Amino acid sequence: MAKQPPTLDEIFSPRGVAVVGVSPNGRGFATGVLVSLQSAGFPAIYPINPRYTDVFNMPCYPNLQAVPGIVDHVIVSIPAESALSLLDDCAAKGVKSVHFFTAGFSESGLQDRVDLEKTMLAKARAGGFRIIGPNCIGLFVPKSKLVNTAAVPIESGPIAFISQSGGHAQNLPEYGSPRGLRFSKVVSYGNGLDIDESELLEYFAQDSETDIIAAYIEGVKDGRRFFNALRTAASRKPVVIYKGGTTEAGKRAAHGHTASLTSSVAAFEALCRQMNVIRVDDVDEMVDVLVSLRFARPLPDGTGAVVMGAGGGPSVLASDELEKAGLQVPPLSKATQTELLNFLPLAGAILINPIDASNLATPEAIINTMKVVSRLPEISMLLYHLGFHPISSWGGGRFAQPSFLDPMIEGINSVRNSFSKPVLFVLRPPNNLNNMKDFLIVQEALVKAGLPTFYSLHQAGKAMARIITWQKRQTT
Amino acid sequence: MAKQPPTLDEIFSPRGVAVVGVSPNGRGFATGVLVSLQSAGFPAIYPINPRYTDVFNMPCYPNLQAVPGIVDHVIVSIPAESALSLLDDCAAKGVKSVHFFTAGFSESGLQDRVDLEKTMLAKARAGGFRIIGPNCIGLFVPKSKLVNTAAVPIESGPIAFISQSGGHAQNLPEYGSPRGLRFSKVVSYGNGLDIDESELLEYFAQDSETDIIAAYIEGVKDGRRFFNALRTAASRKPVVIYKGGTTEAGKRAAHGHTASLTSSVAAFEALCRQMNVIRVDDVDEMVDVLVSLRFARPLPDGTGAVVMGAGGGPSVLASDELEKAGLQVPPLSKATQTELLNFLPLAGAILINPIDASNLATPEAIINTMKVVSRLPEISMLLYHLGFHPISSWGGGRFAQPSFLDPMIEGINSVRNSFSKPVLFVLRPPNNLNNMKDFLIVQEALVKAGLPTFYSLHQAGKAMARIITWQKRQTT
Repeated sequence: MAKQPPTLDEIFSPRGVAVVGVSPNGRGFATGVLVSLQSAGFPAIYPINPRYTDVFNMPCYPNLQAVPGIVDHVIVSIPAESALSLLDDCAAKGVKSVHFFTAGFSESGLQDRVDLEKTMLAKARAGGFRIIGPNCIGLFVPKSKLVNTAAVPIESGPIAFISQSGGHAQNLPEYGSPRGLRFSKVVSYGNGLDIDESELLEYFAQDSETDIIAAYIEGVKDGRRFFNALRTAASRKPVVIYKGGTTEAGKRAAHGHTASLTSSVAAFEALCRQMNVIRVDDVDEMVDVLVSLRFARPLPDGTGAVVMGAGGGPSVLASDELEKAGLQVPPLSKATQTELLNFLPLAGAILINPIDASNLATPEAIINTMKVVSRLPEISMLLYHLGFHPISSWGGGRFAQPSFLDPMIEGINSVRNSFSKPVLFVLRPPNNLNNMKDFLIVQEALVKAGLPTFYSLHQAGKAMARIITWQKRQTT
Repeated sequence: MAKQPPTLDEIFSPRGVAVVGVSPNGRGFATGVLVSLQSAGFPAIYPINPRYTDVFNMPCYPNLQAVPGIVDHVIVSIPAESALSLLDDCAAKGVKSVHFFTAGFSESGLQDRVDLEKTMLAKARAGGFRIIGPNCIGLFVPKSKLVNTAAVPIESGPIAFISQSGGHAQNLPEYGSPRGLRFSKVVSYGNGLDIDESELLEYFAQDSETDIIAAYIEGVKDGRRFFNALRTAASRKPVVIYKGGTTEAGKRAAHGHTASLTSSVAAFEALCRQMNVIRVDDVDEMVDVLVSLRFARPLPDGTGAVVMGAGGGPSVLASDELEKAGLQVPPLSKATQTELLNFLPLAGAILINPIDASNLATPEAIINTMKVVSRLPEISMLLYHLGFHPISSWGGGRFAQPSFLDPMIEGINSVRNSFSKPVLFVLRPPNNLNNMKDFLIVQEALVKAGLPTFYSLHQAGKAMARIITWQKRQTT
């Protein structure tokens, strides 16, 4: 009789981890994971390779049976041909979960590899353990110090990310972390032989550590189960999905990537609309939407935006981008413009909204402007941008100095709290080293203050429009 | 009787330049231009300000009449109230052109400022000189060492850029130059009181130093003249237009910015289609299209692309992005895939197109792959990307080394020449300092080799689709 398999909660908090396929030369996925686990301070790591007795100052074991301690989770990077005998070892050791980084399974399109996967699944069922993958980078659970890459901070946050792609399971945390995104659990599930998108959605819908669910999905294994899981999840938490393989070429690539048979885009779009799932088109847009959900506090109660910043051309661009995205940039009344003229100059200024004035680059002018426009009932959010100006030259070169940043941020947070309207920042990433230094200083200060940051007006507008639509549907 | 005004050719090659409104404190537009002209080595610069006798080690004159040498061009940054008396001085000195950086004219919406502009124009007509602006940053003519900003290389190239926005007149060269764009002349014309978009289009249509015309336009003063100028220009050279003020809010911002009354978007779109003008939606897309026109050599003769690079998720994304943009990513035949297996591994690889293989990160594998796919008649262009991988870690960290870059670029240029198919690179900009260093090295090497570089798959696909459409219409 098959053993009772462990729960996902148990899988996400392993007591001991074995890494199979390590080598002392510093190369390869298994070795990278080993080093990452070590530097994260995971307490019980067991490198496995019969060819070595120690790697990176840790004893190395010839096989799982030789490990003296408990092994709950096994991370595997060995050729597909050795998978079955390894699974026998796993059963004998009584592990809870096996993560196959190894590729070259069903996604290769070869029949013997498809059959091999079936046998693997049968062994897992009989052995009472679960399989993650194959063909993925597995688990990132900051709370458990269970990591698979060294590139992101090991800090927990309220976002869960489910990704069929191992690359994207790294890319989203890596690109999201400088903008303040932190994760409860990130699960890369690859071919989804055993643990798949539906089971993960069901789990995260009820996971108390997760407030927001993000998913990269190429194809769905069980349409009915997925439908139900998505409905439940989306009724409880914001769900953001990036669906890969929406074109013919994308579908072929997805099939070659994770053996996914992608469904019709139209059907998927309809599903998302029906469930009020936020759909995005790529990883960058996913970061933008997650940043909006996390840091646009409170979420705006309407679509009216005031745009403040630098340059006539960028102001025209800002207006066009935001209105095309579905937001409004309502004109300010003559009375409001007159009020702004108390501290903004006439020459070279645009005051109608966007507000573009040469001296809108001091903490005082920024805060005073925000105070005036925050009062207006037609305004639901404030957006400040530097146009194309490098941060290094903004505000007379003082923008990245604490003497500028600190009072600006304090003032903005005070305005934000008084009027309950979110303030967004658009900072164009620089294209040289000097400007990059100041860019990183400013980004870090804003993120630390809990402010949402975007890299372009277009991206900010698109993301905000998506969450406003989501929120409206959620409450009706 | 009014004097005969100078030609634009004369205006673009002034013998002496006066800068009015300079100060020794280092701040302000006039002072910035002065310093830029000085460091560019412009031969005859005359600072003007009655309050100083010298600025930045140059003699400073109280007014134009006091200047001992010839003054052809006058750059003005003084309050609008002083404009008329300055123009009298210009007439007395016999200048050819006056550029008003000063804002606060008709774009302010005040009737007396509208009237002031009319009087200014009358004075220019009577004095036999031309006005550029007001409310703009004027002229950048590398050949004449006539510069208005220090941020771009003073090297000529085949692109002319006409911009109603002073900001964008800086932004395009600044963001385009690291990707290889160089300009014959950049003209920021602001409110377009005298020299306007139509006259500039007419000029650049016949300018032998200009092969490609780019324009940022908010509104058109004389519809009939613009129509004819655009038709002539577009029949001779590729014309790329970014139209600002395409939404209601954008139109209001454009009116406040340069007093432009923007026309209907639908009419403008129809005009562009009819004339085969390449329309873009922002400055970044303009850079992308200009890079494509300049460096996608030869321009592709079809829409079929092979995508090579890193990561399954990014490969799916690449396929989706390119097909959505209107390109094709045709599947490779079994025979071609078998050929690729001679030097690419099976495990973890996608060979159908996109081609994603773990070892596609050596010069040899890249060049061998390009040789195999370049032969295929269904393939018109090759695209290589690093997915989300930072350049610092690509190819075992060797990608930015000359030992990697040099043979790769040499091999690629040889393949490109043998098969006459363009090779494009997509390099994702990094978000930290270390990766930025390597990014800049690689970008510079590729640009120096005449290869087109893009910052995202989406942008590359969109730009290539636009120039393919342009080219097809041009030849039919």
